[in-house]
Amino acid sequence: MPSHHETFLVDAVGTHATVDRDMVREHLDRGEFFWLDLHRPKAEELALLSEPFGLHPLAVEDAEHFGQRPKIEEFDGYVYLVVYGANADRDGLVEVHCFVSDRYLVTVHRDDCPTFAAVRRQVVEGRPPALQPALALYRVVDALVDSFFPELAKLDGRIDELEDGVLKQPDDAQLQQVFQLKRRLVVWRKAISPQRDLFARLFSGVVDIPGMTPDTERYYRDVYDHLIRISDLIDSYRDLLTGAMDVYLSTVSNRLNEVMKRLTIVATIFMPLTWIVGFFGMNFAWMVRNITGWVPFFVLAVVTQVIAVAVMLVLFRRRRWI
Amino acid sequence: MPSHHETFLVDAVGTHATVDRDMVREHLDRGEFFWLDLHRPKAEELALLSEPFGLHPLAVEDAEHFGQRPKIEEFDGYVYLVVYGANADRDGLVEVHCFVSDRYLVTVHRDDCPTFAAVRRQVVEGRPPALQPALALYRVVDALVDSFFPELAKLDGRIDELEDGVLKQPDDAQLQQVFQLKRRLVVWRKAISPQRDLFARLFSGVVDIPGMTPDTERYYRDVYDHLIRISDLIDSYRDLLTGAMDVYLSTVSNRLNEVMKRLTIVATIFMPLTWIVGFFGMNFAWMVRNITGWVPFFVLAVVTQVIAVAVMLVLFRRRRWI
Amino acid sequence: MPSHHETFLVDAVGTHATVDRDMVREHLDRGEFFWLDLHRPKAEELALLSEPFGLHPLAVEDAEHFGQRPKIEEFDGYVYLVVYGANADRDGLVEVHCFVSDRYLVTVHRDDCPTFAAVRRQVVEGRPPALQPALALYRVVDALVDSFFPELAKLDGRIDELEDGVLKQPDDAQLQQVFQLKRRLVVWRKAISPQRDLFARLFSGVVDIPGMTPDTERYYRDVYDHLIRISDLIDSYRDLLTGAMDVYLSTVSNRLNEVMKRLTIVATIFMPLTWIVGFFGMNFAWMVRNITGWVPFFVLAVVTQVIAVAVMLVLFRRRRWI
Amino acid sequence: MPSHHETFLVDAVGTHATVDRDMVREHLDRGEFFWLDLHRPKAEELALLSEPFGLHPLAVEDAEHFGQRPKIEEFDGYVYLVVYGANADRDGLVEVHCFVSDRYLVTVHRDDCPTFAAVRRQVVEGRPPALQPALALYRVVDALVDSFFPELAKLDGRIDELEDGVLKQPDDAQLQQVFQLKRRLVVWRKAISPQRDLFARLFSGVVDIPGMTPDTERYYRDVYDHLIRISDLIDSYRDLLTGAMDVYLSTVSNRLNEVMKRLTIVATIFMPLTWIVGFFGMNFAWMVRNITGWVPFFVLAVVTQVIAVAVMLVLFRRRRWI
Amino acid sequence: MPSHHETFLVDAVGTHATVDRDMVREHLDRGEFFWLDLHRPKAEELALLSEPFGLHPLAVEDAEHFGQRPKIEEFDGYVYLVVYGANADRDGLVEVHCFVSDRYLVTVHRDDCPTFAAVRRQVVEGRPPALQPALALYRVVDALVDSFFPELAKLDGRIDELEDGVLKQPDDAQLQQVFQLKRRLVVWRKAISPQRDLFARLFSGVVDIPGMTPDTERYYRDVYDHLIRISDLIDSYRDLLTGAMDVYLSTVSNRLNEVMKRLTIVATIFMPLTWIVGFFGMNFAWMVRNITGWVPFFVLAVVTQVIAVAVMLVLFRRRRWI
Repeated sequence: MPSHHETFLVDAVGTHATVDRDMVREHLDRGEFFWLDLHRPKAEELALLSEPFGLHPLAVEDAEHFGQRPKIEEFDGYVYLVVYGANADRDGLVEVHCFVSDRYLVTVHRDDCPTFAAVRRQVVEGRPPALQPALALYRVVDALVDSFFPELAKLDGRIDELEDGVLKQPDDAQLQQVFQLKRRLVVWRKAISPQRDLFARLFSGVVDIPGMTPDTERYYRDVYDHLIRISDLIDSYRDLLTGAMDVYLSTVSNRLNEVMKRLTIVATIFMPLTWIVGFFGMNFAWMVRNITGWVPFFVLAVVTQVIAVAVMLVLFRRRRWI
Repeated sequence: MPSHHETFLVDAVGTHATVDRDMVREHLDRGEFFWLDLHRPKAEELALLSEPFGLHPLAVEDAEHFGQRPKIEEFDGYVYLVVYGANADRDGLVEVHCFVSDRYLVTVHRDDCPTFAAVRRQVVEGRPPALQPALALYRVVDALVDSFFPELAKLDGRIDELEDGVLKQPDDAQLQQVFQLKRRLVVWRKAISPQRDLFARLFSGVVDIPGMTPDTERYYRDVYDHLIRISDLIDSYRDLLTGAMDVYLSTVSNRLNEVMKRLTIVATIFMPLTWIVGFFGMNFAWMVRNITGWVPFFVLAVVTQVIAVAVMLVLFRRRRWI
Repeated sequence: MPSHHETFLVDAVGTHATVDRDMVREHLDRGEFFWLDLHRPKAEELALLSEPFGLHPLAVEDAEHFGQRPKIEEFDGYVYLVVYGANADRDGLVEVHCFVSDRYLVTVHRDDCPTFAAVRRQVVEGRPPALQPALALYRVVDALVDSFFPELAKLDGRIDELEDGVLKQPDDAQLQQVFQLKRRLVVWRKAISPQRDLFARLFSGVVDIPGMTPDTERYYRDVYDHLIRISDLIDSYRDLLTGAMDVYLSTVSNRLNEVMKRLTIVATIFMPLTWIVGFFGMNFAWMVRNITGWVPFFVLAVVTQVIAVAVMLVLFRRRRWI
Repeated sequence: MPSHHETFLVDAVGTHATVDRDMVREHLDRGEFFWLDLHRPKAEELALLSEPFGLHPLAVEDAEHFGQRPKIEEFDGYVYLVVYGANADRDGLVEVHCFVSDRYLVTVHRDDCPTFAAVRRQVVEGRPPALQPALALYRVVDALVDSFFPELAKLDGRIDELEDGVLKQPDDAQLQQVFQLKRRLVVWRKAISPQRDLFARLFSGVVDIPGMTPDTERYYRDVYDHLIRISDLIDSYRDLLTGAMDVYLSTVSNRLNEVMKRLTIVATIFMPLTWIVGFFGMNFAWMVRNITGWVPFFVLAVVTQVIAVAVMLVLFRRRRWI
Repeated sequence: MPSHHETFLVDAVGTHATVDRDMVREHLDRGEFFWLDLHRPKAEELALLSEPFGLHPLAVEDAEHFGQRPKIEEFDGYVYLVVYGANADRDGLVEVHCFVSDRYLVTVHRDDCPTFAAVRRQVVEGRPPALQPALALYRVVDALVDSFFPELAKLDGRIDELEDGVLKQPDDAQLQQVFQLKRRLVVWRKAISPQRDLFARLFSGVVDIPGMTPDTERYYRDVYDHLIRISDLIDSYRDLLTGAMDVYLSTVSNRLNEVMKRLTIVATIFMPLTWIVGFFGMNFAWMVRNITGWVPFFVLAVVTQVIAVAVMLVLFRRRRWI
């Protein structure tokens, strides 16, 4: 059985791990539906798209270059589809290019799709069985779209942690994480929005997926429904992150306020005191002569300062600063 | 009589607190309209949806999973509807899944709907009597939609308090409350907007509610009108909260300004004074020799400082700082 | 003649200040057009709506509850309209509910409409005379819509004052006023936008005002034009208020900057000086012995400090701080 | 020849500086196309609109009140148009009301239109000659629309200066200018957007300008193209002003940061030093006795302080503060 | 062979570097398709557009004035197109005006188009060969549109550097660069958006490019696809720059906070200490008499101060300030 890193071909017989030109040509001639998955395809595998599949040069060129927008294009007898799923990778996205006609489904992708092993089983054994273009494509697309849910759940958890942390002890790292999560949401949004519009167009009859029936269309509507939900979730999470950032910024600004208040309290108490002690440190002989006993010391040095501090404490208390 | 926490079935005879498969099957066969309410349904109650109701697997799967978007889907002979109401719970929402055909209305929900007891009475005794699909559904949906009004009124009161408080004595807790109320409004908005669009679509004839007549449609238009009003209220409250936050932030920023002004006043008065007293505290013998009588003390130590303070007070007064 | 606080009825004969059920029934039977204005209606006056007018229960219920959205609803043989005007009251709005058929115009309102006395005259004597449903309704609606212009002119004046004040001497009260005016604009906008859309729909032929002709429609278009202008004015004023707030905030932030600069200048001048005078206040016998004449005093105490201050002043001047 | 402040009438013969009722009536009877320009019209000139022109009372009322929105309204046999141009005046706008039928073009305006003298020449001698309703109106409207370009060019220059100034030496006056220019752009935008939409509607065939042919329509399309360009320019300038304000605010905030850093550096250096010199200024006999020679003076007073300063300078250097 | 700065003409024979009126007239008469490229055209070259090409005066006028909006206009027998490409120049844009009929393609531009040499080759030798209006225009437009990709890639690199730099060591220059890049994106966006809409309109059949077939249309769809991708990239980069600026601002604000904290720590430690040493520097004879031995010195001067510092350090540690 093939590792899930490799190209495979699924037909009524089962899964074939080794794929070559003759085998594909024979499958095409036979006319029975099959699914060919090209994972990190080598040059000779990509060449299959031109021959024996005979796809349009512009479509083949697009298929070879990842980073396409989600889109659907109808060609003579087949449809070209770019769909995205989510994973935990660097950029968080899985890009899959699909060609579907009434005889084959070809998927080309560079990123790992861990769920494709399960999809393969479903295509063969699923209920309804999916060795039919519209249903096989549904299985693939459904797996990709649903791969967003666990990733969004993870992100939800991290946002919860952030929201708690920001209130307790705001620090720079949290802000960086907010920006990072926001970036990821922007990336996902850029993949999900056109994908959703693409599925909306599917129902308006502009594009025909081979083998589509009113019954299979219901499955596609289900995918569409999930896409709307994902899109809503992304918007919610973005709102939450914006909220978390607002909390962060206002907490930091409050702390600045607190710090300044503290500084002002310290300065307002000690500056007058320091002036008083400086006053009696002056070398005016007349003053020095007149403050000799313990009474002037006690009254002028101690009592005045205690009074000064007391007055200021009362003032601060009135303004509710302390 | 059943507590409002439990599943019940309403038919022309009255309310039945215990519901089992045979009873449902018999009701379906009889062909008279009934309303089955499944509250926190057990597995065997959910199984009723597949058999004897015979609903589509995709619909049953959705009905079992809460957290759906408000939506309406037409199936063969019945319509599936997800509607939201408000309550004072943690997330502030009540999610109800409805299946309506010309013979039954089935509602599935996990959250408490305190108003359902009253709805039950209205369905049986109301005017017009509602043992008819479109009217029974109207009663349920109307109760859910109207449950937003008291919750919004509570929120209105809390916003009023916040607005007063923020002007008098801004503190961190208020800001947290603003963020919390904003979050609640975001949640409600996410539930209300698609619900409003859903009702708008009802009138365009895309979806047929069984038993809908021009006269009952007027009742649905009334619900739609309420949804628009709720949506408008949510927007208003969001604006008010944003306004309250702006007031908060500018008040806090004004206070920082005040604090800094105060610090500057204190420093600007005492730094020169401290320098003066320090000056005459220097141990230059020539200076010490020349400031022996009470006249130099009075002139240099007292008068200069009084003048310095007076000058600075005048300056501050001119800038309207004090 | 009735005070403008009371219910009245206008017909071809003139204005009647006392209105009772028989009188209304007779007018309805006679079939000549009349206008019945219910101001702060008592229960028995509201009961007239059900009988003899025979309006739909949903419409009567709406008419009794103020706080409706501007809307137009067509019933059998009559049209229900909710329209808003402006006044100087607490919430700044006048809400009027109108029922218009080819035989009557009924207006229900709780707030004072000072312009209604003038409208009454116009309805009877106006040119064209308005004892005709579409024109009588036009007179009422036109008076309500135009009541926004003087209120907006007042607000314009207050914004002008604010803009001047904010530049000269920003204070907290101005900010509060900005927020208050903004709130009023939000309220007005919520009343004007749906009202404008409502009139736009009038021309698309969705709703039929009884007695509407191409010529009277031109008058309604004029009202629509005024609504667009009011809506534009509200937007402009909101922009101006936002601008005033930006000016306020940046002025306040500039002042903070100024305050901090001033503090820094004071501290930067006096901290070194205080250190110098402290230095020569130390009790090192060797130092005290060596600074006995007037020359060291002059050089060390006076000249160094003058130089220090001069250097710092030059530095500040270079940075354009002073 | 008339000054450009006065009313004039252009016909096939030439320009007439004095206009009276009989002359207009005669021109109308003759049936040859003429252009009547009413500049700051007196009451008797405005009366011409009602008689002999016989315009609708609502249109005449609008024509007499400036401050209308750009709009086009079709009446029986003539079209009423409100168009705006730019000038360097207080509010930056020129409002012109036009009535055009197949026999006349009447323009009413209060503000000076310096370009109208040139337009007059073009109407008579232009190529194609414009004594024809659609082309004469085109000349007028084109002159008004193109009057925005030089004003926008001036504004562009001022924005360039602002952008340079804000980076070099931000001050309050610049911010005021940004707000002022923004206000002007808001005013222009309010005049241009509906004007652009108005011209877009011209091509959809909703309104018929008398004498419009496919060929003259191309000229109107050219005006429409200019309106879009003006609208784009206004948007760009608004973006630039917003950018300039962002630069201003962040520069000011950076300077605050710098000021605070400087204060902190000064305080952090001199506070410890002042403490040290204060320490050795204490009157503890034991301490005073033990610091008599030049060695303790040198070590305790000079070396410790030099070391303290050096350590702090190294610390500041490490944090890249100095 | 001509330098790429000069006008040239491509026909079935090859590239002609010198172009004059007779030659163009002869080509037009012959009826074979040719491409004439006017680079920084002289007056006599621009005159060719009027004669022998016989283009409409409005179109010729537009062609002579650069700074047009991207647009497409259909004339009798030919189409006028304004398209933009990117380069590394001052304003980052290349503006090309194209006239295309079934006999010729004329391109007029002031900026260098380095890729036009390659395009020339493709037009003659390309596959499919492009000496046909729709395909020749495609080659030109495709080259211009694709010229955005390398410029966007450069910009991407600079944004990456900025994002790293802003986190490590935020300074003013970075902020200036953010504003500068944002401005460039605004400029590009203003060129790309209408260009994208223009191509969208091409497919709706409003405008006919001569020689367009379903097969060539696919190539134009490819260009359209690239325009959407460029537009998406511009949006992404704008989001990233906004994010970078947010990071910058919050980092700067955090540093201000840090600075203030540091100042507060220093002041809070040294102000009490300075007061203590000032206290024992007072010249009260009674106090001076009573602090003669080493014990009072040690207890009052050293121990109290050490305790004061220790207490404050503990307090700061508790607040997690140090």
